[in-house]
Amino acid sequence: MTFISFEGIDGSGKSTQARRLAEALRARGHAVTLTREPGGSPGAEDIRRMVLEGEAERWSARTELLLFTAARRDHLEKTIQPALDRGEIVITDRFADSTRMYQGLRGGLEDQVDILHASMIGVEPDLTVLIDIPAETGLGRARARHGGEQRFEDMGLGLQRQMRDGFLRLAAAPRFQIIDGTGDPDAVAQDVLGAVLARLPL
Amino acid sequence: MTFISFEGIDGSGKSTQARRLAEALRARGHAVTLTREPGGSPGAEDIRRMVLEGEAERWSARTELLLFTAARRDHLEKTIQPALDRGEIVITDRFADSTRMYQGLRGGLEDQVDILHASMIGVEPDLTVLIDIPAETGLGRARARHGGEQRFEDMGLGLQRQMRDGFLRLAAAPRFQIIDGTGDPDAVAQDVLGAVLARLPL
Repeated sequence: MTFISFEGIDGSGKSTQARRLAEALRARGHAVTLTREPGGSPGAEDIRRMVLEGEAERWSARTELLLFTAARRDHLEKTIQPALDRGEIVITDRFADSTRMYQGLRGGLEDQVDILHASMIGVEPDLTVLIDIPAETGLGRARARHGGEQRFEDMGLGLQRQMRDGFLRLAAAPRFQIIDGTGDPDAVAQDVLGAVLARLPL
Repeated sequence: MTFISFEGIDGSGKSTQARRLAEALRARGHAVTLTREPGGSPGAEDIRRMVLEGEAERWSARTELLLFTAARRDHLEKTIQPALDRGEIVITDRFADSTRMYQGLRGGLEDQVDILHASMIGVEPDLTVLIDIPAETGLGRARARHGGEQRFEDMGLGLQRQMRDGFLRLAAAPRFQIIDGTGDPDAVAQDVLGAVLARLPL
């Protein structure tokens, strides 16, 4: 019955931290569904594959926004909402805030992102954990990783800075918890767990 | 520089008539792009395949609406607008009015269809030819055809009536030309060509 999202720039460690939080909450006896976007349901994974595997210029920013919103709708209906209805904690690696940054802020489609979210999704997490790191750190980590969806990570320092600043502006909303992600992953995981337990009635 | 759509219920003969009009206008020396929805560009055809080939219950009405709007956006950017920019006549077998009927009226998502069209598409044809036939006739023809995307045609007489009435309500808008589609295809094609030549500065 609790919906938690992890957000942050590429290389922030949010995927690791989402998994660590799921493990820590399961160890405390909670039923947890750990999921991710884009994807997280069979239909949404099909859409993800279609969007990410083509050439970078295959889809326009507007078409990509519609496809990612379709994937989110499917993820919400098929994975997130059923798990919440079973009384589980749902932890997702990325949700609508990533669209606000990558399609909205980067793509110059902030109004369209807001309209699509309001009319077709209409749900926000109870808590969003923003794993915050400097743009330089994120870019270095993302480049060291290699593989994966290069098109979303191969975008330079200026863009990483713009995304970090954008996430920090979003994080003024009460549902956000900002966590410093520069330290050792074990220490960051402790900070995340402490914040989650302090803020949510688990 | 002229954008014409064909609409009508399943079995109305609109695909045949769209092709016949393209042939007649080419015979008169015009450059014509004949296209169709859902699909009409490589990306939109990929989306069409993903939507139509799965099980009928695979996508919710909302997700399907987002996917079809993504396909239309791609079709508009990659096929329709470039052809119009080259000075061609574009004839499409279905456009946004089909979404207004099948996802809007049938799916109970009329508000969402309007919001998505206004924010993400924003274009209407110069002329929409509605090939009008009684629901019984359409159902009989569609069933006789077999094959194809059965899930969109296997929907019964009540729905065919609802769709026909809905199209006729839309056709109150000035951009529509209603053509009686019950006669011989040659006679219908003559009626279509006559109306197009009377209404458009070709």
